[in-house]
Amino acid sequence: MARWEPGARERLVLAAVDLFAEQGYDATTVAQIAERAGVTKSTFFRHFPDKREILVAGQQALCRLLTDGITEAPEGATPLDAVAAGLERACGAMGPMNREIGARLQAAIATNVELQERDALKSVGLAAAMTESLCARGVPESIAHLAAELGVLAFKQGYAQWLGSAPDAPLTPYALTALDDLRTATRALT
Amino acid sequence: MARWEPGARERLVLAAVDLFAEQGYDATTVAQIAERAGVTKSTFFRHFPDKREILVAGQQALCRLLTDGITEAPEGATPLDAVAAGLERACGAMGPMNREIGARLQAAIATNVELQERDALKSVGLAAAMTESLCARGVPESIAHLAAELGVLAFKQGYAQWLGSAPDAPLTPYALTALDDLRTATRALT
Repeated sequence: MARWEPGARERLVLAAVDLFAEQGYDATTVAQIAERAGVTKSTFFRHFPDKREILVAGQQALCRLLTDGITEAPEGATPLDAVAAGLERACGAMGPMNREIGARLQAAIATNVELQERDALKSVGLAAAMTESLCARGVPESIAHLAAELGVLAFKQGYAQWLGSAPDAPLTPYALTALDDLRTATRALT
Repeated sequence: MARWEPGARERLVLAAVDLFAEQGYDATTVAQIAERAGVTKSTFFRHFPDKREILVAGQQALCRLLTDGITEAPEGATPLDAVAAGLERACGAMGPMNREIGARLQAAIATNVELQERDALKSVGLAAAMTESLCARGVPESIAHLAAELGVLAFKQGYAQWLGSAPDAPLTPYALTALDDLRTATRALT
């Protein structure tokens, strides 16, 4: 019934995420990941320099999409509109592969403190990169920082809802609705 | 010239933080921490069940202070005023020991990805606990979440500035000023 056929790279990522969930990140070896994915160790190393890169590669791509969207937002866009443009760019690039990996990774994160720590640092990195992109647009640092934090929260909230939605649903509306809710909460706060 | 004399527990924490910085968290053993602190391993175990607890103990105390302050804020306090009460409670409890450990821990965190991950997860935990305390006051979840995130940002920003300030300076004004700046940024954002 699979409508999406994973290639070797995707199978490696899925195998790694499953093994991280089952036995922890530290205890998982490259040999185990390759075996679970049904490929050789040399195939693993053609795709990734090490197991850490499996987690890092996705983060870097996400970071670039978010910041590209912010950078290329129309000149007159407000900070939160620029953040919304970043979310649209990143969410629009997320397909069945991201959904499949995301669901398994969330399950792994829920039961593994080590992965929770990595995930938390990932959010810090995303917020820092988005802050920098907003500052480059001329947004004052404190406002840029806050807008970036709201963007990360919106992405995380939207992403979590997306993983529980119908298989065909796109991610973008969930993230943008979450950002709108945060905008409303921000108004209510002051 | 020391105006504050650390006891065995404090010496253990300082030794641990220094060793984490020098050689990483994983590579540091309880035996090394005890030796550096000039105590026996059994003294270590009278104070902490394991090395992880050294980092966790401080976090739990901070978390309790922040949430107690929120819970006991006057009934009519706005969400951000309740957060300010939490910051006052926590910051008021921070003395020379926290400053000494904080400075060394920040140096360790700056050069160690593993400690950065732990520190990032610590912030997530603080935000979750503060959100819960605000919800218990009747604040709607989305607003509570946002107010808690602002509280964590204010604490972190204020704390970083405090570490670079005059030795006698109290932490509270730095954290409250950071919260005020975030309040202003929040207004500018919407």
